[in-house]
Amino acid sequence: MNKRLGNQTVKILNPVSIISAANVAGKKEGEGPLAMYFDKILSDAAWGEETWEKTESKMQNFAVTNAISRANLKNSDINYILAGDLLNQCISSSFALRDLNIPFFGVYGACSTMAETISLGSMLIDGGFAENVAAVTSSHFCTAERQYRQPLEYGGQRTPNAQWTVTGSGAVILSGSGDGPYITHITTGEIVDMGIKDANNMGAAMAPAAAETLKAHFVETGRQPSYYDLILTGDLGILGKSIMIDLMGDYGYDLRDNYDDCGCLIFDAESQDTHAGGSGCGCSAVTLTGYVMSLISQGKLKNVLFMATGALLSPTSTLQGESIPSIAHAVAISSSREDSGL
Amino acid sequence: MNKRLGNQTVKILNPVSIISAANVAGKKEGEGPLAMYFDKILSDAAWGEETWEKTESKMQNFAVTNAISRANLKNSDINYILAGDLLNQCISSSFALRDLNIPFFGVYGACSTMAETISLGSMLIDGGFAENVAAVTSSHFCTAERQYRQPLEYGGQRTPNAQWTVTGSGAVILSGSGDGPYITHITTGEIVDMGIKDANNMGAAMAPAAAETLKAHFVETGRQPSYYDLILTGDLGILGKSIMIDLMGDYGYDLRDNYDDCGCLIFDAESQDTHAGGSGCGCSAVTLTGYVMSLISQGKLKNVLFMATGALLSPTSTLQGESIPSIAHAVAISSSREDSGL
Repeated sequence: MNKRLGNQTVKILNPVSIISAANVAGKKEGEGPLAMYFDKILSDAAWGEETWEKTESKMQNFAVTNAISRANLKNSDINYILAGDLLNQCISSSFALRDLNIPFFGVYGACSTMAETISLGSMLIDGGFAENVAAVTSSHFCTAERQYRQPLEYGGQRTPNAQWTVTGSGAVILSGSGDGPYITHITTGEIVDMGIKDANNMGAAMAPAAAETLKAHFVETGRQPSYYDLILTGDLGILGKSIMIDLMGDYGYDLRDNYDDCGCLIFDAESQDTHAGGSGCGCSAVTLTGYVMSLISQGKLKNVLFMATGALLSPTSTLQGESIPSIAHAVAISSSREDSGL
Repeated sequence: MNKRLGNQTVKILNPVSIISAANVAGKKEGEGPLAMYFDKILSDAAWGEETWEKTESKMQNFAVTNAISRANLKNSDINYILAGDLLNQCISSSFALRDLNIPFFGVYGACSTMAETISLGSMLIDGGFAENVAAVTSSHFCTAERQYRQPLEYGGQRTPNAQWTVTGSGAVILSGSGDGPYITHITTGEIVDMGIKDANNMGAAMAPAAAETLKAHFVETGRQPSYYDLILTGDLGILGKSIMIDLMGDYGYDLRDNYDDCGCLIFDAESQDTHAGGSGCGCSAVTLTGYVMSLISQGKLKNVLFMATGALLSPTSTLQGESIPSIAHAVAISSSREDSGL
């Protein structure tokens, strides 16, 4: 089993490339710092649909069908589609993808979904079970807000630590044929629960899970933080990012130079009033498929560690007084096979 | 890619065995026809917990920890755990497994979860990424009823087509070392939505998805129904089973001799007043880990096609007037490598 480097990390031995990516983002996201990296920016929250849930499904369908056509493939060329989202019973995904006629594996990783789908998809390709795999996820501010918190019409106050669920969907096509960027290593998270119970402080709940996964990645690959041009967590937000830097410092890893968080990049917290930053499955999905993929193709980034983070709670578990189990999955991406150590 | 037999079916080339299984079932299930196959039968719905959600997590933890110890393994020997359930945000799984320290992939396949976790787990082992994988799921009548339908205290009437969510959890350990029963083929479902909108008639919604997956399995493997000693769907129930037989008859396959459904086997519909039969992730999980595994070990079954079925709806999608997207995943199990065609 020479693919296994340790308890949590495997090496992808056959080349697996991200051959295309596509995304769509909401109006507010389109007014933020990453606007230039979105394929489509919605002009309102509904996009012509009767309900926000249908809008979210439409976004996910848009992202994945565009990623497929950009790869010059047809639906029938995609062997598996891996998808999930935040809505109860993952309905954004099942309704978005029901007409595609592609074998479907639904996943639930909360906001870690983009990394989870890429992890499993890469292993299915490397394992010889697929040539092309689609990975997609989404979130929508309005569907998440009313499901997890309050009806939007209620106009509830937000706490200073609260994050803003990103309206957006991102998809990638992974392939065994392609010339990069390559998925080179996968470090799969264990569930970490440090006892934090404040559902308005998800960054603090998720940062320890991110730190455990990142530490495992460094130990098992023998890499140091400096190996990467960018280490990118999913949606720890401003507070969680600072906790993450502290935790990794305690483990002896200095993240101050090349670490960032999608939730910090996607909004200008001050001018956009997003408090602790962005969150949601779509936050890391649109940042990866837009910003990261674009900088890699421009040669500005070569080695990236993409680590999406998820809080595995529900409103029911919170009402029952439970703490917040969290998880983080890391995917190492390299623009060349040489740098990937293959 | 000689592992791929067709659009939906792959062959497992390296041996993957189910080296252990364990389950736990509720009181009503313990009064039914499969009682003798359960490792533990609860005496009430709470099992000493304050909420039914915590009970369901406890059941899932019980099933997986017992499966691990029966395999003479430690948690640290399990490379991945794949799990999911019906509750919003899959909290039965995340809370059940948070203390195990095993890399975790959460899945959402509704009641198809047991087949989905075994499918992905088998591919991770065959692909060289894991030696041992745990697959587990659960459902609980009381958590499902209040989430999907009405508060139990409301005492709502049940329609004749309604099914009864099974209280139960089942887990298996898959391994690259073992002497069977072997996972030999995996046929992954596409989402099928025939426009049925009655959330009290899930069997009718899911039967077409099961028929499409089963037809693909026969076409792509070249097998006929008679190859199997038992073809077993997950929770189509009494009505769905009869639709399934009709649909497959239309496709030219006679299922009358060796086909059954876990939802029909688990309860005595007449004496137990369960209307159209059992349902829920736990329905197929306890039937597989109890009844099927037991008959295989006794030599009474050699080749089994296990096909769990899922309805990918939510109460929100139903309220919004949507139909019910459905899916079915099939896993071929053989007691000997010879019969598996390897």
